[in-house]
Amino acid sequence: MKKYTVAVVGAIGAVGQEMIRTLEKRNFPVGTLKPLDVPVNRGKEIMFNNEKVKVEVAENGAFEGVDIAFFSAGGDASLELAPKAAKAGAIVVDNSSAWRMDPTVPLVIPEVNPEAVDAHKGIIANPNCSTIQMLVALKPIHDAYQIKRIVVSTYQAVSGSGKPGIDELSQQVIDYVEGNELVHNAYPHQIAFNAIPHIDVFMENGYTKEEMKMVEETKKILDETIKVSPTAVRIPVFRSHSESICIETVKPFEVSDVMELLKNAPGVTLMDDLSTNTYPLAIIAEGKDDVYVGRVRRDPSIENGLNMWVVADNLRKGAALNTIQIGELLIKRNLI
Amino acid sequence: MKKYTVAVVGAIGAVGQEMIRTLEKRNFPVGTLKPLDVPVNRGKEIMFNNEKVKVEVAENGAFEGVDIAFFSAGGDASLELAPKAAKAGAIVVDNSSAWRMDPTVPLVIPEVNPEAVDAHKGIIANPNCSTIQMLVALKPIHDAYQIKRIVVSTYQAVSGSGKPGIDELSQQVIDYVEGNELVHNAYPHQIAFNAIPHIDVFMENGYTKEEMKMVEETKKILDETIKVSPTAVRIPVFRSHSESICIETVKPFEVSDVMELLKNAPGVTLMDDLSTNTYPLAIIAEGKDDVYVGRVRRDPSIENGLNMWVVADNLRKGAALNTIQIGELLIKRNLI
Repeated sequence: MKKYTVAVVGAIGAVGQEMIRTLEKRNFPVGTLKPLDVPVNRGKEIMFNNEKVKVEVAENGAFEGVDIAFFSAGGDASLELAPKAAKAGAIVVDNSSAWRMDPTVPLVIPEVNPEAVDAHKGIIANPNCSTIQMLVALKPIHDAYQIKRIVVSTYQAVSGSGKPGIDELSQQVIDYVEGNELVHNAYPHQIAFNAIPHIDVFMENGYTKEEMKMVEETKKILDETIKVSPTAVRIPVFRSHSESICIETVKPFEVSDVMELLKNAPGVTLMDDLSTNTYPLAIIAEGKDDVYVGRVRRDPSIENGLNMWVVADNLRKGAALNTIQIGELLIKRNLI
Repeated sequence: MKKYTVAVVGAIGAVGQEMIRTLEKRNFPVGTLKPLDVPVNRGKEIMFNNEKVKVEVAENGAFEGVDIAFFSAGGDASLELAPKAAKAGAIVVDNSSAWRMDPTVPLVIPEVNPEAVDAHKGIIANPNCSTIQMLVALKPIHDAYQIKRIVVSTYQAVSGSGKPGIDELSQQVIDYVEGNELVHNAYPHQIAFNAIPHIDVFMENGYTKEEMKMVEETKKILDETIKVSPTAVRIPVFRSHSESICIETVKPFEVSDVMELLKNAPGVTLMDDLSTNTYPLAIIAEGKDDVYVGRVRRDPSIENGLNMWVVADNLRKGAALNTIQIGELLIKRNLI
């Protein structure tokens, strides 16, 4: 089997670390691993398949000989380095939002629109975490009954803000228990024991950028006719995003048929047994690959309405896992 | 000014205590206060207007001479004692769910349907906390533009489960910080660092009782033509429920006109300035009387659609305050 030279850009970050663990776990055919990061992390050692690998600097020249470069280094680094990596011959799979809406860049969820990778021109984008889990759950329903509109409210974990978010919730909880004042820096308000309806910056239309990602990425990935009404909220959970999703379809359905579709959908675990209080939970999805779907029920307030509760690990399927799966897709489709 | 003999049933509970503080704070014309509770609390002393008052037992016979009895003692106690209190001549204002859907019992939010109290036959019901804050915010919009449908996802505080909920979140957070195992009893799953889409019991249609309260109480209080699609979720917040609300109206509106209506609505504080990250938050609403509304924005996914974020203290406006306000309404309308 052919092996590849694989770069991970942002190798020291939360998602970069998760990417390296995912490469190992899924036996991605790595010949050489090149962990790249900012200069301050040069020379740090990373364990990969029981061997120490030294971090190099993510800069022009670092991508010579690289077949595939998984980026999770933030939007600015991606804007600067991804074209350089692509020019050096690597295929870039980028986890930032920098390239997602570029019409020349495929935006891919392997379970949803795998064929989109074929048109790549060197850069492929990984969607936003909230979008990925929503669309993995909705894809089989859309194929069968054509979704018209989605109303979604999110319950998002602090790990979506990386280490600063995790550290801030941790510290606020410690300070609460010790009776100290709660200090906030990573978020505009205290996140412990609170719900903040504000993720990423506000846009002119009154929505946040996080919310507009769900609107626009859904159109690009699944179907441009689907309308999305989003509210994105940060809650004091460390890991896994939950979503309350209300959809309306064009064609009528039986809830039992929807359940059957979800049971057989790739990347989905249906978790729905009310008699035993079984439904998806953030603490259950943590560390898991699948998107968990439950509380599937007819919405009697509208014709062809359906409500559901969707949970996934935002660092796994929402980020690292989906990125590596795009890499696997490139191999499978002989694009690399 | 006439003074009244006022009973508080469940005087030792979280809401009962809040009721007594609210009676004081709002200078309710109390001649005699009769705090009533279960036998084990007999003789306990409560401070009311700087005087000690002894708790008596809530039982048949305790309501002689009582003008108004505020109940927050749970559904079973209400079912048994409220008719007895009414028979003894008291007007009962009940905070449990026991009487809410009884067609002979008015279900009242003073800012929304004050006239409903006139038809009382001895018992008046206080709506569910999640319904109250939603309808206080939506009433002015419904009056002007006629609401057709509401999609609501809640972010509810543990104090909605009373002391056991508060104690459980507290203990789990302490155990987390101390590295102990997290134990749960009050909830079916761990509530710390989690989001549980399950409040009250599940019904045959796949919705919880909490969710169906929002559906049915909205019809009874505001307009029976309004359809509600609810998802009720418990999150690790101590106090104040937040709600992500998406509505569709019959008549077209300008968002600026809706903002103006909300600014002038009784019981509402509009808190909506994105340039300063100003929007309602659970930790802001805590201990306050008003319903806070913000993130008011057009929902472009549907004609005449609007999204908003609504937060209120579930123990104040969601329970104790609304109950006492019904008492004030009875006085104002000469019903007592």
